[in-house]
Amino acid sequence: MRRILPILALLLPTAATAASAAGPNATPSEIVAHAPDTAWADVPVDRLLVMTLANGARITIELAPQFAPVHTDNIAALARAHWWDGGAIIRVQENYVVQWAPRDEKARPPAGFVAHPPAEYDRPRHDIAIRPLGFPDPYAPSAGFAAGWPVAADEDRVWLPHCYGMVGVGRDMPPDTGDGQELYAVNSEAPRQLDRNLAVVGRVLTGMDTFGALPRGTAALGFYASKAQNVAIRSVSLAADLPPARQPHLQVMRTDGPTFTAYLNARANRTDPFFIRPAHGVALCNVPVPVREKP
Amino acid sequence: MRRILPILALLLPTAATAASAAGPNATPSEIVAHAPDTAWADVPVDRLLVMTLANGARITIELAPQFAPVHTDNIAALARAHWWDGGAIIRVQENYVVQWAPRDEKARPPAGFVAHPPAEYDRPRHDIAIRPLGFPDPYAPSAGFAAGWPVAADEDRVWLPHCYGMVGVGRDMPPDTGDGQELYAVNSEAPRQLDRNLAVVGRVLTGMDTFGALPRGTAALGFYASKAQNVAIRSVSLAADLPPARQPHLQVMRTDGPTFTAYLNARANRTDPFFIRPAHGVALCNVPVPVREKP
Repeated sequence: MRRILPILALLLPTAATAASAAGPNATPSEIVAHAPDTAWADVPVDRLLVMTLANGARITIELAPQFAPVHTDNIAALARAHWWDGGAIIRVQENYVVQWAPRDEKARPPAGFVAHPPAEYDRPRHDIAIRPLGFPDPYAPSAGFAAGWPVAADEDRVWLPHCYGMVGVGRDMPPDTGDGQELYAVNSEAPRQLDRNLAVVGRVLTGMDTFGALPRGTAALGFYASKAQNVAIRSVSLAADLPPARQPHLQVMRTDGPTFTAYLNARANRTDPFFIRPAHGVALCNVPVPVREKP
Repeated sequence: MRRILPILALLLPTAATAASAAGPNATPSEIVAHAPDTAWADVPVDRLLVMTLANGARITIELAPQFAPVHTDNIAALARAHWWDGGAIIRVQENYVVQWAPRDEKARPPAGFVAHPPAEYDRPRHDIAIRPLGFPDPYAPSAGFAAGWPVAADEDRVWLPHCYGMVGVGRDMPPDTGDGQELYAVNSEAPRQLDRNLAVVGRVLTGMDTFGALPRGTAALGFYASKAQNVAIRSVSLAADLPPARQPHLQVMRTDGPTFTAYLNARANRTDPFFIRPAHGVALCNVPVPVREKP
């Protein structure tokens, strides 16, 4: 197994290297492991969905009201109404998306639910400070990070990209925009052709290892071939509605600070000893914004 | 489930749309489904690995001797010596790699095995015709396709990128280059920081749905925490060594022809009815080269 150990240096801090975390040869993981508390921002519990599968596995999803307020309000209202309790993951398409549905899409939605939200596929950029990625993006004139989120943008508009783990709203043919009852999470090489064509409303913060390992559906587009194959959802709650002891307290790295700058630079220029040639570049979706449990 | 059906239009040809496969609004899948036989190239059985897991699942891997001849000769020799029969997948790291190892790394390698191959991390580009991607690549001066493979390049060198499903050789710290006994397959958002730092020797042609759904390892870096958790490999054979009836006959789309051009353009500019805004761009690793069973 000897050739395995060095790969450790790729991703984990070790006692030997920890001291160099702030140094020029720190790995991204070392920088994250040693980030000061000031580098992190709390995820508000009223923006955090907690999905529990029938087998007890837990997935947490942060909503992005800054980018899709009407859709995220719908989703929060549905969670508060236990809309997905007893629902199921109905589709797992290899290298594309994981998609889930409520117990009953024809049930009467909760008060305040907007049946036909506007197309929140992008938003004005004038009031959002974007920290540039610093490298070209094949899909957009510019790419970077804003308020803790990866973003793509042109001169006037900014939008959330379909990176691994991002969550969007399934929809019917245009002009339908989806209403938030059926959501999907990207489990693949970023399908960014979907950017600005669907409402991206959040991201999986923890539990992508569970979503990623779900058996692929065998029907067309990865839908499970029978209801018996669906992955049962025990509940989806807004974290704020959970008993305090069961509320996750997660933090996302601030993308406007020096620690994220060091992390981004390290992702683009690996100089730790395993590497012989830094890339001097990185793709937007290959710079996952670090997440941690609040200490 | 009504909002599901349109998503069908994203990826599958239908009787209604098949006639438009060659038209301006054909989807990538429609173009692939209706590609003429001349658009495809056979995968030689002496370059094709067939891995069978203990549960019977089959994964096929095409080797790339054009890019890493010494490593791929080693791998073919190891397969012919049944090196991985009784071996195991020992590591499944979420959003990174699936890695497997032989039954006994200390066994005596077969004749012709090169214990210390050269660093086949890239190769000269002068004798390789590259069909350009046509969009910027964050990791390399240029990107495109050559002889059926995605490639990245600078003025003098060309290399295989770490896209989803690409297969590489695990190695120890430099100057070690790995010898091919331990291989990994990318199961994630393309970790292209690894480009030119490891020998990429091939790609999974079929079976990524199996690799992708493997349970993630819980030890550091996604290694399985105990041997009991390892995923047993029944056998890894060179397809040429299998009885004719069990040899896979696969074809990969030629990347130098008009059908691939239409496919690439469709990946970059989705104009089928589900889309309201084509990206007018695409990332190298989001243009998987189509594969099919030979009719």
